[in-house]
Amino acid sequence: MPPITSMDKNILLAHGTGGRMSHKLIDEVFLRVFDNPILLEKDDGAIVEIGGEKLAFTTDSYVVKPIFFPGGDIGKLSVWGTVNDLAVMGAEPFYISCGLIIEEGLELEILERIISSMAEAARIANVLVVTGDTKVVERGGADRIYINTSGVGMLKKNLPLNGIEPTDKIILSGSIGEHEVSVLLARDELPFHSDIVSDLAPLNLLVSEILNVDGIKFIRDPTRGGLATTLNEIAEGRNIGIIVEEEKIKISEEVKAVCELLGLDPFCLANEGKMVVVVKSDCADEVVRRMRKNPLGRESEIIGEVVGELNGRVCLKTRVGGTRILDMLTGYQLPRIC
Amino acid sequence: MPPITSMDKNILLAHGTGGRMSHKLIDEVFLRVFDNPILLEKDDGAIVEIGGEKLAFTTDSYVVKPIFFPGGDIGKLSVWGTVNDLAVMGAEPFYISCGLIIEEGLELEILERIISSMAEAARIANVLVVTGDTKVVERGGADRIYINTSGVGMLKKNLPLNGIEPTDKIILSGSIGEHEVSVLLARDELPFHSDIVSDLAPLNLLVSEILNVDGIKFIRDPTRGGLATTLNEIAEGRNIGIIVEEEKIKISEEVKAVCELLGLDPFCLANEGKMVVVVKSDCADEVVRRMRKNPLGRESEIIGEVVGELNGRVCLKTRVGGTRILDMLTGYQLPRIC
Repeated sequence: MPPITSMDKNILLAHGTGGRMSHKLIDEVFLRVFDNPILLEKDDGAIVEIGGEKLAFTTDSYVVKPIFFPGGDIGKLSVWGTVNDLAVMGAEPFYISCGLIIEEGLELEILERIISSMAEAARIANVLVVTGDTKVVERGGADRIYINTSGVGMLKKNLPLNGIEPTDKIILSGSIGEHEVSVLLARDELPFHSDIVSDLAPLNLLVSEILNVDGIKFIRDPTRGGLATTLNEIAEGRNIGIIVEEEKIKISEEVKAVCELLGLDPFCLANEGKMVVVVKSDCADEVVRRMRKNPLGRESEIIGEVVGELNGRVCLKTRVGGTRILDMLTGYQLPRIC
Repeated sequence: MPPITSMDKNILLAHGTGGRMSHKLIDEVFLRVFDNPILLEKDDGAIVEIGGEKLAFTTDSYVVKPIFFPGGDIGKLSVWGTVNDLAVMGAEPFYISCGLIIEEGLELEILERIISSMAEAARIANVLVVTGDTKVVERGGADRIYINTSGVGMLKKNLPLNGIEPTDKIILSGSIGEHEVSVLLARDELPFHSDIVSDLAPLNLLVSEILNVDGIKFIRDPTRGGLATTLNEIAEGRNIGIIVEEEKIKISEEVKAVCELLGLDPFCLANEGKMVVVVKSDCADEVVRRMRKNPLGRESEIIGEVVGELNGRVCLKTRVGGTRILDMLTGYQLPRIC
């Protein structure tokens, strides 16, 4: 791709999808300007040291539309999304901040429902919301409510990308696509109904079930940009190849049907309660066994492996015996799905 | 005031100004629902413990309009505002997160200027921007760009409100009102021009000049809601009285003129580079001397003192020898000034 500045002079929705365009923006603007080694790690959060303690620190803004969807709402999403970012870094999430940007006119009853949902999510994930800020903008200055949460946790195990090696196995904790499809259908812009519910869930307990297995190399939650983007980030970041088998990757019949109707790629759909684990080959079965004991990992499967070839690309072995390159999300599917 | 739920069914701009309405919202929604002892401190940030280390953790979203104003921009504001929140808690600011919500169509050149400004602000304040997130919303879903920053620092000295006692002195680091007036005039909605420049500045060095003085009790930066709101928060929080002298509180002639023209109360105007210090009486002169050595504290003055009477209220001794109650900002002056 040409440099971003020659391609576009303006920010596009695709810059916010977590896929290829987001990566270009991050590389060409943020990393260039901020230029510090912690940020250059390009992780979902930062590992920082304060007084000898290693902490994980992460931030995410949530602009999901609509703010209530089957299986969740912007409040739970904002707490568990950030809990999950900390957990997959190998940290135990402790403290969450809550920054609200509210559009003038939002019903107080809606705000109370969202705040109550955040509080319930925090209780379930065993974290505390300890500090907050509220800004109100005039009508038309926001779309009801946006929430930023940042999170701080204690690093339990450092899981750097460069620990990943050929022959490592790739485990996926369950079926993909439910979150993005449930949000899309909740917009009521489509003439059909489905019972698809977001997979939104806190992953910190599931992570803690496996974190003390020696062979755990890397964990990531495939949110914006989906499984395809996460696998490509791993492959590109480490300059290795990844081969995954289509028949091992669970996609519900309902999600498949919506994808076919709308021309969506299920591998690029956002998830909010799934994780990808890279693990040393000889520990893979043990890790799957442990994950399956947790309700959120019941459908865990080894979906593929790391190879020395392919130069940073991801290859999908299809059901019919062919192979194809599985690229990162390149344009955008839907804006505002988290 | 009656409970918020009987007064309004919708969020108003006044709920975001940091004054009386914001306090009601915080008390009646957030504190009730989140109910944990750290949040109940109602400080600008939280003091949290991780592995034996005491950390300060704070968050703020910035929605200032316009995004460039005399003396600063939303980028510098977002870094220094959060640096200042950590500094006045008695913490050394270390790490900053950056959560962007960008309106589709924002010029990339503008984004680069803002990010560069954040990077410069971070260098000047000696903090690192270590993690970030970018969301893009459709046109009309935001007003150009909103920035959330959260900050983590190491607590150097705990400065709880309940250390404040009668006879303590109140010090103010300089003149008030420049930030809010500069932002207001930058909106170009008014038919006159002035040379007022925002006082936006990082306060961490100024704080560090005085933090090791034994008699330092409490520090706060009078941002949204201004000096009047900060003094009332102290008086109400500790249920003591505060008496301040109008003639000791510096307000530039330009700010006074704008306030008179527009009917604004300078005591309720936001500042972004000033601080209020509560100090034991016998250390006050020493603290003023130290503060005046720093360019940001050159105009520091003892503006008043804490008294046992007045039951949580703030009293202003006017220039002409009278007295009046100085209340917290009750409605709103201007939205989106930070």
